[in-house]
Amino acid sequence: MLINNKHYRTIWYEKNLESVKIIDQTKLPFNLDIVSLKKFDDVIKAINEMKVRGAPLIGATAAYGVCLAYRELKNKNKIKEKAFEIMNTRPTAFNLFWAVNKMLSKIDTALDKIEMEQILFEEAEKICEHDIEQCKNIGKNGLGIIKEIHNKKGEVNILTHCNAGWLATIDWGTATAPIYFAKKNDLNVHVWVDETRPRNQGAFLTSYELNNEGVKNTIITDNTAGLLMQRGQVDLCIVGADRVTNTGHVANKIGTFMKAVIAREFDIPFYVAIPTTTIDWNTEKFEDIIIEERSNTELSHITGLDSNDKISTVKIYPDNSNIYNPAFDITPSKFVKSLITEKGIINANYKGMVSLKDE
Amino acid sequence: MLINNKHYRTIWYEKNLESVKIIDQTKLPFNLDIVSLKKFDDVIKAINEMKVRGAPLIGATAAYGVCLAYRELKNKNKIKEKAFEIMNTRPTAFNLFWAVNKMLSKIDTALDKIEMEQILFEEAEKICEHDIEQCKNIGKNGLGIIKEIHNKKGEVNILTHCNAGWLATIDWGTATAPIYFAKKNDLNVHVWVDETRPRNQGAFLTSYELNNEGVKNTIITDNTAGLLMQRGQVDLCIVGADRVTNTGHVANKIGTFMKAVIAREFDIPFYVAIPTTTIDWNTEKFEDIIIEERSNTELSHITGLDSNDKISTVKIYPDNSNIYNPAFDITPSKFVKSLITEKGIINANYKGMVSLKDE
Repeated sequence: MLINNKHYRTIWYEKNLESVKIIDQTKLPFNLDIVSLKKFDDVIKAINEMKVRGAPLIGATAAYGVCLAYRELKNKNKIKEKAFEIMNTRPTAFNLFWAVNKMLSKIDTALDKIEMEQILFEEAEKICEHDIEQCKNIGKNGLGIIKEIHNKKGEVNILTHCNAGWLATIDWGTATAPIYFAKKNDLNVHVWVDETRPRNQGAFLTSYELNNEGVKNTIITDNTAGLLMQRGQVDLCIVGADRVTNTGHVANKIGTFMKAVIAREFDIPFYVAIPTTTIDWNTEKFEDIIIEERSNTELSHITGLDSNDKISTVKIYPDNSNIYNPAFDITPSKFVKSLITEKGIINANYKGMVSLKDE
Repeated sequence: MLINNKHYRTIWYEKNLESVKIIDQTKLPFNLDIVSLKKFDDVIKAINEMKVRGAPLIGATAAYGVCLAYRELKNKNKIKEKAFEIMNTRPTAFNLFWAVNKMLSKIDTALDKIEMEQILFEEAEKICEHDIEQCKNIGKNGLGIIKEIHNKKGEVNILTHCNAGWLATIDWGTATAPIYFAKKNDLNVHVWVDETRPRNQGAFLTSYELNNEGVKNTIITDNTAGLLMQRGQVDLCIVGADRVTNTGHVANKIGTFMKAVIAREFDIPFYVAIPTTTIDWNTEKFEDIIIEERSNTELSHITGLDSNDKISTVKIYPDNSNIYNPAFDITPSKFVKSLITEKGIINANYKGMVSLKDE
């Protein structure tokens, strides 16, 4: 999608430079920094420090991580250790495990090393292309939902949480894909963007990308959705997910669950947009999903521009504060109206999930 | 209550200096600045800029504002204009209107000016003393609720939103009063403190005052309550209110409503602690409560300590962000387990409210 009217993806490989390029998302919205990942350790760092984030993008970055590890090691056995290392970066986003396993399945001891390396880079590129196709199809499938409301009201107010935009994927996004398709179809859409503390990905990333695509949007605190829904100012919610169980339970950014509960209170449909690569086919109970707990400094410190327009980090809590910072929560399937996938819109239950597998 | 082991109230009159003293709450938790309000305009500014905030404290400050206006004007007729000016500072907190009207009722054209001034200052002091008594009794009445859970579990986890602590009142607080009484009774209490964006009064004020009183507490983002409740880590919620209708609907800091809805989802009792001076006896429907909308900069800018430990304000959103910033929301009475008042614990409905009036 567009940044300053120029098309970007979130990740790409530059063969001439032998490096993977990413947009450093910790610098947005203030600076557009394109950084190079040349070594395996660069990938680990980029994922750990959330230079890249969003389940599909974490998966794609991890795939390139396997490529870089192989290039460094040229050893088909040791590559598994490195694969585990990548899989240990972040515990919740399922695409990470999917992508790394997909890469490992390509390791073929019969091939020579140069050929093997080429196959791995091709596979990582395929994972990216596949993700873009998935997101486009999520957009096409979700468009109908927005259209239906638009036909009745002439405008559609959509609430989203965190960033499940193109910056969380390779292009198009998951939750945003139907919105971008609606915009391209000249539908009158407006997005309520949850700020999404502690890392403010809604304000920093979602609002940023919607502005760049000319989609009307308004940033609100994470506290505001209840009032808006009570006043009838939200027509539907669309969020992404980091992992969905085979029974339709949804792990997503902390705060998603409360939005789903309040939406149900007002009969506002709550949709979760995911590529099927986010589905954890081996997990049934939501209690079995590991919720990542992140550093307290994500709450106690915040980065912005000081009075001289320089990027500055300020400490907003006193030193002795106790802080608890779980990064995700679980929305049980009963709060989810439907899942919008690249294969169609399905019910968030075992039967719905299985229908995706059969295709 | 205590700050650095010294007892403070949030507001007091120093007769020798002819000035009203307040703690500038926009400087907490980083600096403890005691500032003087010597003129009527100082009071208007202090309320508008939220140097004082919290419904009971706004009321008490407004009462002193009437005193200062009278001292400046020495005119019993013009005082009404000034009273209207104060009442126009903030539209939602009901104690403001209660306190100003109480002050106006003391205006007696038969008295001489010096006597009248003295009576007004005495009345403002009475309003403060009355608030302290109310808060203490809220504490005594609410203690039983905490005790009951403590008897069963040996510990009590309480979630609160925003600051309905002693800093929102004159002393003791509303939502915090039962907690401080529990602490003084050696009950094992722990408080989950909602950060409370956009102004972070939970992190900046509630955590600060609980730390100063030695009450265990943990700051969480406003997004986190759902996960905690789902995991059984919250035993009850206590919040304050800016206004309660005669039918028990509760206007309080934006985000309160969502906490109440999610609490009901898990059968966690949601209590609202108020002095009866917060009750708007003339309003029945919650739609009739005016919700204050505040400046966008409350979201887009945030103040903390920079790397040199200097207070610094940083802009956290890009310039072109659309922002919507309502300061309060309404929790319909059906989500409120009970109201904890200085006169007892009552149901949040017309019958319950009327029982307070009869006493």
